[in-house]
Amino acid sequence: MEATAGTPDGVSRRRFLRRVGAVGGATALYGTMEALGLLASPANAEQDTFEPLREGDLNGAAPKVAILGAGTAGLTVAYELGKAGYDCHVLEARSKPGGRAMTIRRGDRLTDTDGVTQVCQFDQGQYYNAGPSRIPSHHLTIDYCRELGVAIEPMVNANAQGFYYHENTTTTDYGPLASTRVTHRQAKADVYGYICELLAQAVDQGALDELLNAQDAERLVELASSLGGLSGGRYVGNNRRGYSEPRGAGDQPGVVAGPPPSMSAVLQSQLGTRFAFEFGFDQAMMMWQPVGGMDRISAALADAVGGRRRITYEAPVTAITNTGDGVRVSYRSNGRARTLDADYCVVTIPPMVLRNLSSNFSQATKDALAVPVGANSGRMGIQFKRRFWEEDFDIYGGVTHTNLDVSGIYYPSYGYFQRTGVLVGYYSGAYTNIPVPDRATRAVEQGVKIHGEVYREEYDNSFSVAWPKEPYSLGAWVSWPGGRGAAYQHLLQPDGNVYFAGDHLSYYTAWQNGAFLSARKVVTDLHTRATTTAP
Amino acid sequence: MEATAGTPDGVSRRRFLRRVGAVGGATALYGTMEALGLLASPANAEQDTFEPLREGDLNGAAPKVAILGAGTAGLTVAYELGKAGYDCHVLEARSKPGGRAMTIRRGDRLTDTDGVTQVCQFDQGQYYNAGPSRIPSHHLTIDYCRELGVAIEPMVNANAQGFYYHENTTTTDYGPLASTRVTHRQAKADVYGYICELLAQAVDQGALDELLNAQDAERLVELASSLGGLSGGRYVGNNRRGYSEPRGAGDQPGVVAGPPPSMSAVLQSQLGTRFAFEFGFDQAMMMWQPVGGMDRISAALADAVGGRRRITYEAPVTAITNTGDGVRVSYRSNGRARTLDADYCVVTIPPMVLRNLSSNFSQATKDALAVPVGANSGRMGIQFKRRFWEEDFDIYGGVTHTNLDVSGIYYPSYGYFQRTGVLVGYYSGAYTNIPVPDRATRAVEQGVKIHGEVYREEYDNSFSVAWPKEPYSLGAWVSWPGGRGAAYQHLLQPDGNVYFAGDHLSYYTAWQNGAFLSARKVVTDLHTRATTTAP
Repeated sequence: MEATAGTPDGVSRRRFLRRVGAVGGATALYGTMEALGLLASPANAEQDTFEPLREGDLNGAAPKVAILGAGTAGLTVAYELGKAGYDCHVLEARSKPGGRAMTIRRGDRLTDTDGVTQVCQFDQGQYYNAGPSRIPSHHLTIDYCRELGVAIEPMVNANAQGFYYHENTTTTDYGPLASTRVTHRQAKADVYGYICELLAQAVDQGALDELLNAQDAERLVELASSLGGLSGGRYVGNNRRGYSEPRGAGDQPGVVAGPPPSMSAVLQSQLGTRFAFEFGFDQAMMMWQPVGGMDRISAALADAVGGRRRITYEAPVTAITNTGDGVRVSYRSNGRARTLDADYCVVTIPPMVLRNLSSNFSQATKDALAVPVGANSGRMGIQFKRRFWEEDFDIYGGVTHTNLDVSGIYYPSYGYFQRTGVLVGYYSGAYTNIPVPDRATRAVEQGVKIHGEVYREEYDNSFSVAWPKEPYSLGAWVSWPGGRGAAYQHLLQPDGNVYFAGDHLSYYTAWQNGAFLSARKVVTDLHTRATTTAP
Repeated sequence: MEATAGTPDGVSRRRFLRRVGAVGGATALYGTMEALGLLASPANAEQDTFEPLREGDLNGAAPKVAILGAGTAGLTVAYELGKAGYDCHVLEARSKPGGRAMTIRRGDRLTDTDGVTQVCQFDQGQYYNAGPSRIPSHHLTIDYCRELGVAIEPMVNANAQGFYYHENTTTTDYGPLASTRVTHRQAKADVYGYICELLAQAVDQGALDELLNAQDAERLVELASSLGGLSGGRYVGNNRRGYSEPRGAGDQPGVVAGPPPSMSAVLQSQLGTRFAFEFGFDQAMMMWQPVGGMDRISAALADAVGGRRRITYEAPVTAITNTGDGVRVSYRSNGRARTLDADYCVVTIPPMVLRNLSSNFSQATKDALAVPVGANSGRMGIQFKRRFWEEDFDIYGGVTHTNLDVSGIYYPSYGYFQRTGVLVGYYSGAYTNIPVPDRATRAVEQGVKIHGEVYREEYDNSFSVAWPKEPYSLGAWVSWPGGRGAAYQHLLQPDGNVYFAGDHLSYYTAWQNGAFLSARKVVTDLHTRATTTAP
């Protein structure tokens, strides 16, 4: 795939050459495979055709670029343009970089659009990521971590020790397994066991004869037996479920936990409909996180672009004006109105915020900015006095998936064995309109259903971010009603000397990968223009 | 489950009480669930009924105990007996602790039973675990790491970016996907896609009507659609396979890789028969490893028992003699024959080695020691000049499973982004009788089939351990021909004042968990005897 994903002109040259080297003499084989349509190691396909700028790529004076927002997109624009010597100035409303790539630690303060202020009380060293929190191996985010020297560690996105939990609703009866915590390992054993039994039975009855020849039918039965852990074509439980009496030393062979719930109970539980999450192209393990918090990436980017020499914090923008030969940005800093004049401007402010600012954008641009909707989601970090999930449940990282309004409980993928710990107590939009003090009460009530009273007893303190009420985001991410239509298309083009960037202008919405991709596209667009026309 | 797994007298009291607290008010619920046979969170079941010894548990003088072998079992015996003040002396043939929990680093030297010596040439900081290399969350090994302050980190035992690779054999034709590397993510998409299509078809044809009522049939179709990622009941590929043209910024929605190979090709490939590995009770993610190498556990145990004050290294035992009121152990040290007299002896030397030593064991014991067979397995660490698997293939940790004689290629779960790296190039008994210099040549040839010529080009150096030729192990682990019969049973009892311990005397053969369990059993047995009878 590496050798056929694009031509040397169509992909990043350095990576392409490296990969041709990697497949080397096997090229003939790959040609054959391609012809058969069998080849797809798409995770290695290039993310885009970006060619990083280098010193010397500018002929004349360095254009001055105002970059609005020190989130992932804005800092990447500054970082990549900076490689060619562009004179970049970043304005950021918040007091630190990262945007929604926000890591919450002791002392962090957040005032929401209701005017309610929270101050984080976590122990030193404890944190949670309130925005993006996981990185698949194939995203540009990993490449930037490498380039910037940001260490990564596994983010446990799936764990056999985590639970599934379905509670009956007014419309759905989940049967005998309703309101029962079931480990991922047990749910998988039972679901795969029964569907494989059904497959074996269907073959046995000749029901699939029209779809399978005799050899394939035999292979299917073998596959079903292995995948389902069947005994004589039947699922009667197996040790994938675990043991009710553990194996031990000496005379302790252990007793396999069982018998499993009935096929009907397993189907009615609908737990199996949750498994596909783990197959997602962007969710399948292994997943990663920066050591020390997601904001380590933006911190490294901020350092790489020159820190406060290039970035002004606590500088909310009030107006953006195309001046004909450049852009004037009005903002506030230290209580005073200020302006920044530049040749170009790159705006990474989310549309929900940007459309409230003053500008002389075209009506078409204003109309386009009015279209996107801020998604309702939020996340609570709960510090517990004791890591009971590790000590009592043998859960080290991973997720408990529920149909409760907390949605998922995410156990921390760092600090194993420490006394205290912060887990993500909800990942949901359902808490946005619940008053801040009541959120924890409700989240804990839900957690008790899974973990028992220990969840209440060991509760220490919490912090929550409701993204629609975060004043400089006004949404967890952007959705485009009706899809990426005319409004999306319009914002891919500059308005005068103003460019727009952000994950919302990519097919990777809500991922930092989208912010990197969009930033790189705008860097290419802007540089092409700057080097072919006078500003 | 926690509340019902045993009575307070039958489980470790501390953990039991903690767990009762953990479920607390939910007890009534669990009672109901238990009655329904639905309850099984067996991963939280106690491993054994061990009650750690404490100061004051000995009334009179501290018995002297000779412990033979400073592997996991021997050190654990010394550690746990030491808590009550037993006077423990450990003899170890090798120059460092750990036994088969062996981490290979720069400068390590190994002379095999053929007299061939290897010296490890890895870069400083690079290593691989030649013996046990992964720890499931529910093993005692994790508890000991916690207690001893050994930091753990994820061991990537499954990774969607890893490959499956099946090459035709003289007996099996794997069809169009033979000799093709297929990512785990793609194999899973295709296998689950097709079997779910078959399930949906079977329901559609009424083939499962006798096994499913109408509601369950409907639920099964919904499950199949979600689990298989079907479109209108058919599997036509989906984005779980990845993209042939990646999603990007702006106008790049991406193109899903496809079309998938035919159902017949997927069945013939037999790749799906490999998936069950990831469901194993002891193999399912999340898995763990000590930071810095598996031998960090034995290093911590050795420190905890008093280091060289209690452990004599390079002291191979030559004879074990029950003296009537104690045990005399003969050994060599600094080129001289020496003896150690003790009240008791705990032997953790593997039976394949132990049966060659001189002893006055009963004939029944000698017969029992003759039964177990040393398993043939080994592992090679290969250092590459560049982590091409990370840089070119986006593989960070995880396993490529093959039907080649290397069996698996294990990518390192540490040191991400470093320039050089050590992967496990084979994990197999097939290389034991290949001369040391030829092993690397062969392993690299196999690796080239998966990764291309880069595998040869970036090869730097390697080190291999063939456990049957490792003089103080003579096998990777023990197998009991015909199962754990009379010989196994016999060795659970002491011969005179000599006790036997090791993973081979547990139902966790080849796992450190088995060594911990066996050690704890012997500690209990020995302590019971020591405190009820005079030595």
